[in-house]
Amino acid sequence: METASREAMVLAVNESFYRAFADRDLAAMDKVWARVVEVACVHPGWAPLYGRDAVMESWAGILSNPSSPDIRCLHAQATIYGEVAMVVCYEVVERGYLVATNLFMRESGAWKLFHHQAGPTSARPADPATPGQGSKRLH
Amino acid sequence: METASREAMVLAVNESFYRAFADRDLAAMDKVWARVVEVACVHPGWAPLYGRDAVMESWAGILSNPSSPDIRCLHAQATIYGEVAMVVCYEVVERGYLVATNLFMRESGAWKLFHHQAGPTSARPADPATPGQGSKRLH
Repeated sequence: METASREAMVLAVNESFYRAFADRDLAAMDKVWARVVEVACVHPGWAPLYGRDAVMESWAGILSNPSSPDIRCLHAQATIYGEVAMVVCYEVVERGYLVATNLFMRESGAWKLFHHQAGPTSARPADPATPGQGSKRLH
Repeated sequence: METASREAMVLAVNESFYRAFADRDLAAMDKVWARVVEVACVHPGWAPLYGRDAVMESWAGILSNPSSPDIRCLHAQATIYGEVAMVVCYEVVERGYLVATNLFMRESGAWKLFHHQAGPTSARPADPATPGQGSKRLH
């Protein structure tokens, strides 16, 4: 498969992660995360979480919390590294912007999330009104 | 090579990243980063940086800045994902703690850093006086 097609597939799965988040859909969130390889997650300001149980427990809490922010993803950039795909993107929340790193690996033919880290940024994405995705920027 | 040995090698390279940072050694930092695959970097609060030139330019600025914080790495946890290795760790800086994700891939037989994201955390690592490294925690 061409690199561009693989990146587009990864970006689609990345978008499904943010859709599950925005929809407060724990079942959809569960489907996004890997089941075979080890998973980890660094929510903004939290200690690192290791293991699927701890990560999914965190999402159950976040998605059921009425004060959890609305969120959308901007300027997602996908790069393939062998069997691993990395997406770096902005997250737009009510109080500002974060930057996230999301890592995916294929399980049973589908890209699955195995790591997420998000943290606050004082940077402002160019043209935040446009939720476009793109392939990686060139050097 | 056994998984434990591979993780130990990755943790050693991860430590060399923090040593280059702490020593303000731009040449050593340059050696840590990948040359073949694409690199990216998310410094705390910054916009994402893409490409080796942008990333190394950022390190040149950080390492030459007298107000850059002293830093050390705590509780590094390494996991291997095919050709990619991930380290999640705490960073201890003067004003508190951060959590970092560092990603490595082999180039010419050596693990090289291709992505770093660090962000602030309100969590406190257990026993921060002990700079021990470890293999991954079990589920």
